[in-house]
Amino acid sequence: MSAKAKIGVLGASGYTGSELVRLLVRHPQIEIALLTADRKAGQEMRDVFPQFSHLALPKLISIESIDWKATGLDLVFGALPHATTQIVIKDLLDKAPKTKVVDLSADFRLSDPAAYARWYGHEHHATELQKEAVYGLVEIHRDKIKSARLVANPGCYTSCAELPLIPLIRAKAIDVDEIVVDAKSGMTGAGRAAKENMLFSEVSEGFHAYGVGHHRHMAELDQEFSAAAGRDVIVSFTPHLVPMNRGILSTIYVRSLGGKSPEDLHAVLTSFYGKEPFVHVLPFGQMPQTRHVRGSNMTYIGVANDRIKGRAIIGSALDNLVKGASGQAMQNMNLLLGFPETMGLEQIALFP
Amino acid sequence: MSAKAKIGVLGASGYTGSELVRLLVRHPQIEIALLTADRKAGQEMRDVFPQFSHLALPKLISIESIDWKATGLDLVFGALPHATTQIVIKDLLDKAPKTKVVDLSADFRLSDPAAYARWYGHEHHATELQKEAVYGLVEIHRDKIKSARLVANPGCYTSCAELPLIPLIRAKAIDVDEIVVDAKSGMTGAGRAAKENMLFSEVSEGFHAYGVGHHRHMAELDQEFSAAAGRDVIVSFTPHLVPMNRGILSTIYVRSLGGKSPEDLHAVLTSFYGKEPFVHVLPFGQMPQTRHVRGSNMTYIGVANDRIKGRAIIGSALDNLVKGASGQAMQNMNLLLGFPETMGLEQIALFP
Amino acid sequence: MSAKAKIGVLGASGYTGSELVRLLVRHPQIEIALLTADRKAGQEMRDVFPQFSHLALPKLISIESIDWKATGLDLVFGALPHATTQIVIKDLLDKAPKTKVVDLSADFRLSDPAAYARWYGHEHHATELQKEAVYGLVEIHRDKIKSARLVANPGCYTSCAELPLIPLIRAKAIDVDEIVVDAKSGMTGAGRAAKENMLFSEVSEGFHAYGVGHHRHMAELDQEFSAAAGRDVIVSFTPHLVPMNRGILSTIYVRSLGGKSPEDLHAVLTSFYGKEPFVHVLPFGQMPQTRHVRGSNMTYIGVANDRIKGRAIIGSALDNLVKGASGQAMQNMNLLLGFPETMGLEQIALFP
Amino acid sequence: MSAKAKIGVLGASGYTGSELVRLLVRHPQIEIALLTADRKAGQEMRDVFPQFSHLALPKLISIESIDWKATGLDLVFGALPHATTQIVIKDLLDKAPKTKVVDLSADFRLSDPAAYARWYGHEHHATELQKEAVYGLVEIHRDKIKSARLVANPGCYTSCAELPLIPLIRAKAIDVDEIVVDAKSGMTGAGRAAKENMLFSEVSEGFHAYGVGHHRHMAELDQEFSAAAGRDVIVSFTPHLVPMNRGILSTIYVRSLGGKSPEDLHAVLTSFYGKEPFVHVLPFGQMPQTRHVRGSNMTYIGVANDRIKGRAIIGSALDNLVKGASGQAMQNMNLLLGFPETMGLEQIALFP
Repeated sequence: MSAKAKIGVLGASGYTGSELVRLLVRHPQIEIALLTADRKAGQEMRDVFPQFSHLALPKLISIESIDWKATGLDLVFGALPHATTQIVIKDLLDKAPKTKVVDLSADFRLSDPAAYARWYGHEHHATELQKEAVYGLVEIHRDKIKSARLVANPGCYTSCAELPLIPLIRAKAIDVDEIVVDAKSGMTGAGRAAKENMLFSEVSEGFHAYGVGHHRHMAELDQEFSAAAGRDVIVSFTPHLVPMNRGILSTIYVRSLGGKSPEDLHAVLTSFYGKEPFVHVLPFGQMPQTRHVRGSNMTYIGVANDRIKGRAIIGSALDNLVKGASGQAMQNMNLLLGFPETMGLEQIALFP
Repeated sequence: MSAKAKIGVLGASGYTGSELVRLLVRHPQIEIALLTADRKAGQEMRDVFPQFSHLALPKLISIESIDWKATGLDLVFGALPHATTQIVIKDLLDKAPKTKVVDLSADFRLSDPAAYARWYGHEHHATELQKEAVYGLVEIHRDKIKSARLVANPGCYTSCAELPLIPLIRAKAIDVDEIVVDAKSGMTGAGRAAKENMLFSEVSEGFHAYGVGHHRHMAELDQEFSAAAGRDVIVSFTPHLVPMNRGILSTIYVRSLGGKSPEDLHAVLTSFYGKEPFVHVLPFGQMPQTRHVRGSNMTYIGVANDRIKGRAIIGSALDNLVKGASGQAMQNMNLLLGFPETMGLEQIALFP
Repeated sequence: MSAKAKIGVLGASGYTGSELVRLLVRHPQIEIALLTADRKAGQEMRDVFPQFSHLALPKLISIESIDWKATGLDLVFGALPHATTQIVIKDLLDKAPKTKVVDLSADFRLSDPAAYARWYGHEHHATELQKEAVYGLVEIHRDKIKSARLVANPGCYTSCAELPLIPLIRAKAIDVDEIVVDAKSGMTGAGRAAKENMLFSEVSEGFHAYGVGHHRHMAELDQEFSAAAGRDVIVSFTPHLVPMNRGILSTIYVRSLGGKSPEDLHAVLTSFYGKEPFVHVLPFGQMPQTRHVRGSNMTYIGVANDRIKGRAIIGSALDNLVKGASGQAMQNMNLLLGFPETMGLEQIALFP
Repeated sequence: MSAKAKIGVLGASGYTGSELVRLLVRHPQIEIALLTADRKAGQEMRDVFPQFSHLALPKLISIESIDWKATGLDLVFGALPHATTQIVIKDLLDKAPKTKVVDLSADFRLSDPAAYARWYGHEHHATELQKEAVYGLVEIHRDKIKSARLVANPGCYTSCAELPLIPLIRAKAIDVDEIVVDAKSGMTGAGRAAKENMLFSEVSEGFHAYGVGHHRHMAELDQEFSAAAGRDVIVSFTPHLVPMNRGILSTIYVRSLGGKSPEDLHAVLTSFYGKEPFVHVLPFGQMPQTRHVRGSNMTYIGVANDRIKGRAIIGSALDNLVKGASGQAMQNMNLLLGFPETMGLEQIALFP
């Protein structure tokens, strides 16, 4: 075998960063060559994430200290905060244009500069890259991703809603004007920044909605659903926080078109995902649970009857840090570097 | 002051039973005269619920051992399993017809015998009482309750959905054919029976829907919403389990009628509940959290804009064991026995 | 009835502050006249703690804006950070010397200036008050507290360990040189400050010790145990964090003296606490659980056989925010203001 | 490569069974040939554990239906209840004597028939096998295990206490008459049987000790500590339940011998475990957290100063289902079948 691919992780002290490291150390064809963490530069990864105490890993360094050309990385994962990312990635690709990039921030997910400016409140700082970037939901855009240089890894909420809905929208099986996505996420989706409202005592033993009517993941949903429908689509979407670490469950309410039954919708999905290794459609009527995909790269989808004629209820569950972030990112890496798509991603969910 | 009212609790070894006891011991005008628990008859309450270790309470006895006439109870709470209840209450009211009853089971909630038989799979065993029973959602049916003998305490999910929706339906402010109720409940809603799927390790660190398309609380929703609308109404309703002990949050998606804005819907609710001690409508745009009503008899309701024109998102939160069960039951007791409605129910939520 | 006592709470935006407010609003003889919160001055209490949304409470103000003399408060609770407290309380008592103070910080708990300086790294700024302050563990120091002006409310860990151990040490029933206190606390004990290591995802689904060998509550234990023994005593003490909001459980390993059996130790405690309203000794062999005192002012204590001859295992459980902080503080208030000691503190634990 | 080893799992519908399956499906040299589950015989594994929904696995069968000779299994894992096990394994080895067995029950852990009878209340039904069985704590008994046919996989609590203590006892570094082991376990340690006291609402948001003074794991501790010391040793041991799924933390209080400092004890452990892949001793003063070994086969050990001269505090953390059960069992399997010891066990902890 030839030399292993050299991989860098920008922002390794956050949860998506540590999750990338967890997955990458088990991937047989790569080596972790570089880890950054600006505020924690100089520390060992084991100081920041003691679960790596028994492993040898590169020390955390600051991004400023990197000579992109000299490092000779084959691929870089961006796990940096939104907005910072576009500046860093632009600089990286200017200096080392052959490096592949899988970016986990929201910076390159919206292909329309106007939509980006509207949702994020400022012009994009790397519009050329914004155009170049490919939206990295593998099961939907696999072919484009294979030949990309820069992949925008999708959001966790959006992946969980898009995987069940895009095949149905493409098949014109559901009314796109009456979709309700009620989404529930574990706390790691909020990241590792110290905020009062993320303290254990604030979120344990309770449940609430947030970002009602104006969550940024909506922009991504709009883009992908509209593309699938061939016209503008917006959906009702409400995120909630569950007192658990990992997992997203979306409960989706749809009205079918053309007299299609819930079983017909189920058939569309089983047909679409029949050969996919990371999307599994449960038997009709069975609903997914987040705990059964915890720590794995799987998405489980279920379809059930609503008791209202013409309507169906769809459930979709994934681990927000794996299929919703770092696992999806490694799946993209496998495509970009020519490895088998499932390599390093075969771990089974950790339940209980 | 005159003698205290003598109160019995049937089924004191379950969670709604212990919650009744927790509330009743603080009520200044009653005494707990009788506690039953069939499988645990002969035990002290402190053996079954050690939080009462320092209190003097009647020993748990079996229902069979009771002479209803001789006990001379003023009011009995039924916290027995569904179906058992109707037989016990019939016997009780045959022998001690002046006793008032607040029943927490589902047995007397449906006034239509046919609906009961359809949802529960058997004929009702006490159809006369079924006719007599008053549906005990105080804020909606206060006047009828005051003169009742038998009150059917509403279900926890249904209370949480009916409190925000009935005023809007009555006001013809929303389209009753397009209501989606996505409900999330803590684990105490499932009771204290030992079942594998209720074990800590089965429900911790995860989230899932259950009873999709066929939960029995739907029958209650149908009855009350249809009554409010003056015609048949059925809604999409999906319950979920949250890894927490207490609390229900309903996220409700509605389409307004007559060009009403979400602010207009909010105004309907603030007007309807302005003087209610136990229902509080939050400022427009603010959403409730279950933790802020934990252990209290409050319901918090919020209304926010959906980004889809003509639609609104409503949140409703209560503690399933208090306003969703035992607190509501004691509120009914206060009405039946002529006490101030808030007596014994003034505790503030326990947060954090 | 005469006018209600006017009460102020300094630091109402933290957890012990909100817990004081929760308890105070139910106390029939006081009114909440003043609430402070420096960083959140100008906000309503309901903005900071939505569980108070339906209540009328004074707006949060800054301490600097207060004219102590003019406010005419009967009693002030200090729920401020350590070190800040001594400066604020000194100023308050200089200007309004008749005000009573119950301070929940550590500032006045150590009576020895040298011990204070050693543990806190600086000289005390109000040594006169340090001398004056009475250590407010009611069951141990009730008489002194009654005539005090300034009461130092004990720490949560220390209350939980001192209540079972001081009677045994006073009775010379146990070897003071071989006491191990293994303590486990819920997360609210760490306060509401936003710190990475207190985020939900950092502490959920896991368990760990902290402050091993050097936790500040040790100084308090040393002082009180030495006083009880009449000579210097230090104990092994290790605190741990439990993924729960409230509660402390101390598991205490002791060797008995004079051939005393574990049953004898149990008898010492049942005798000492037989008439206490807030300390309950369980039947021999039964161990306490934190959930059975949650939200209440109770301490539950259990004593059991160790299988090693001459040794016993003691369990002690309380709610760190109630008997371990704000409930204990209100119990002190009742003594200072001449109210019945249990007034406003009769709530039953919230289980489940 | 030769054919894969054929493996059976008896009792696959419990948590240690599902954990074995989780690990085995990733092991490159084995195939899962047989899965049993008496009450759930006839079901698919995915019906019992939906996390396996996308995998092909043998259907669950009953033990009675097995022809041990015909199945030709290379190795069988016993994950059956205590007492049942000895009868099943005896029958298996009578009929297929070349099969290797790793048993996860307590049935073969005690080598002394008298001790077994005393702790379990009945004579052992397979005393010959009891003599033959090797205690399977790999890091302590590796050589004996390699040549064994029947390995008794150690208990979770005992593994967590024995790994740090046996090297210290062997080195005569600590006083064996004054060891206190305060142990805290996640809920999966209690298994999957439906019991009231294991319901979510009974164990969430609380903490308690159980089995005080008489937990069966004590017998195992006695045996192994006495063997290490060369004389009878009994220790204080108290287990507690933590509201989390996985993990055990033992906080161990010891007095050193021969003037050894805590740093000296640390040195004994770092030396003993320096080359072990699955036991990692943290830097002196750093304490382990269960979350950092969750889902992995690692044990993390820490040693810190007690402030009492001559005493030290030791922390030990492992995942009760992995290193405390199924991972340890697969480590034993690797030894028995001649595979590299770490094969299939390299997964990194899932944190957060």
